[in-house]
Amino acid sequence: MTENALGDGNKTVTQIALVVKNIEEKSAIFAELFGVEKPEWFITEKGKDTFYNGQPTDAQAKLAFFHMENITIELIEPVGGPSTWRDALEQNGDSLHHIAFNVKGMETVIGNLTKLGIPLIQRGGDPENGGGYAYCDGEKKLGLVLELLEGY
Amino acid sequence: MTENALGDGNKTVTQIALVVKNIEEKSAIFAELFGVEKPEWFITEKGKDTFYNGQPTDAQAKLAFFHMENITIELIEPVGGPSTWRDALEQNGDSLHHIAFNVKGMETVIGNLTKLGIPLIQRGGDPENGGGYAYCDGEKKLGLVLELLEGY
Repeated sequence: MTENALGDGNKTVTQIALVVKNIEEKSAIFAELFGVEKPEWFITEKGKDTFYNGQPTDAQAKLAFFHMENITIELIEPVGGPSTWRDALEQNGDSLHHIAFNVKGMETVIGNLTKLGIPLIQRGGDPENGGGYAYCDGEKKLGLVLELLEGY
Repeated sequence: MTENALGDGNKTVTQIALVVKNIEEKSAIFAELFGVEKPEWFITEKGKDTFYNGQPTDAQAKLAFFHMENITIELIEPVGGPSTWRDALEQNGDSLHHIAFNVKGMETVIGNLTKLGIPLIQRGGDPENGGGYAYCDGEKKLGLVLELLEGY
């Protein structure tokens, strides 16, 4: 495959994610829409490796996943401190937030995106130890946020 | 498959779409991100069958498509009269607008969604003659707009 900014011609969108005020309520409505059992949400660990706008944050999130045929729809309810999730929810209410890509070599991809004017805004976890994520702020350049996932 | 509101257990998201102010500019940036040729945009027909909020509209759109491995990313620049695209762009700027599903039996699905509190907001074309689309306003119930596509 041709090399691209996401690495090795990566053209698979793994997740579409929304931020929501009330994950319990929204999960029930999505479950009804798709004709599936309401998934249990879980809360992310309070990570010592979580940074937002370059500052440590105690942000966590309640997450629920709907596994569609070709992609996963993720609902995110912000918990705790500052985060891209909380800012998006305060600005736009319940709304689409990002699309995600599984990458290899997170640091290289973050560097590529930064060169494209899509800077790192939040990160957490560790790609080499249980999995890590990074959000790159493409709202100005693309009209959306990109999430990079590695090692989960 | 189990029946659901989208018909026959439909769980495949065919498109993720953004509204954008300048499709030429945004297409170039997405093409660079994905390492592909910039797709040519085209403009939709001025349809006599296009309705927004129950009223006829001369809304059109410039469209550009990025065919990813598992899904298509669509960029939409509103042209002409009132539309969900124009309203979303004026409210949120360049931003994610909807996810799309290919359906069979558009009217039944629109009826199912209406019962779920997700009403029809815009439609155009004809599912039985060249293809038709419908947008159902899930912004309050789901946090996003759903597009139904049939017959394309």
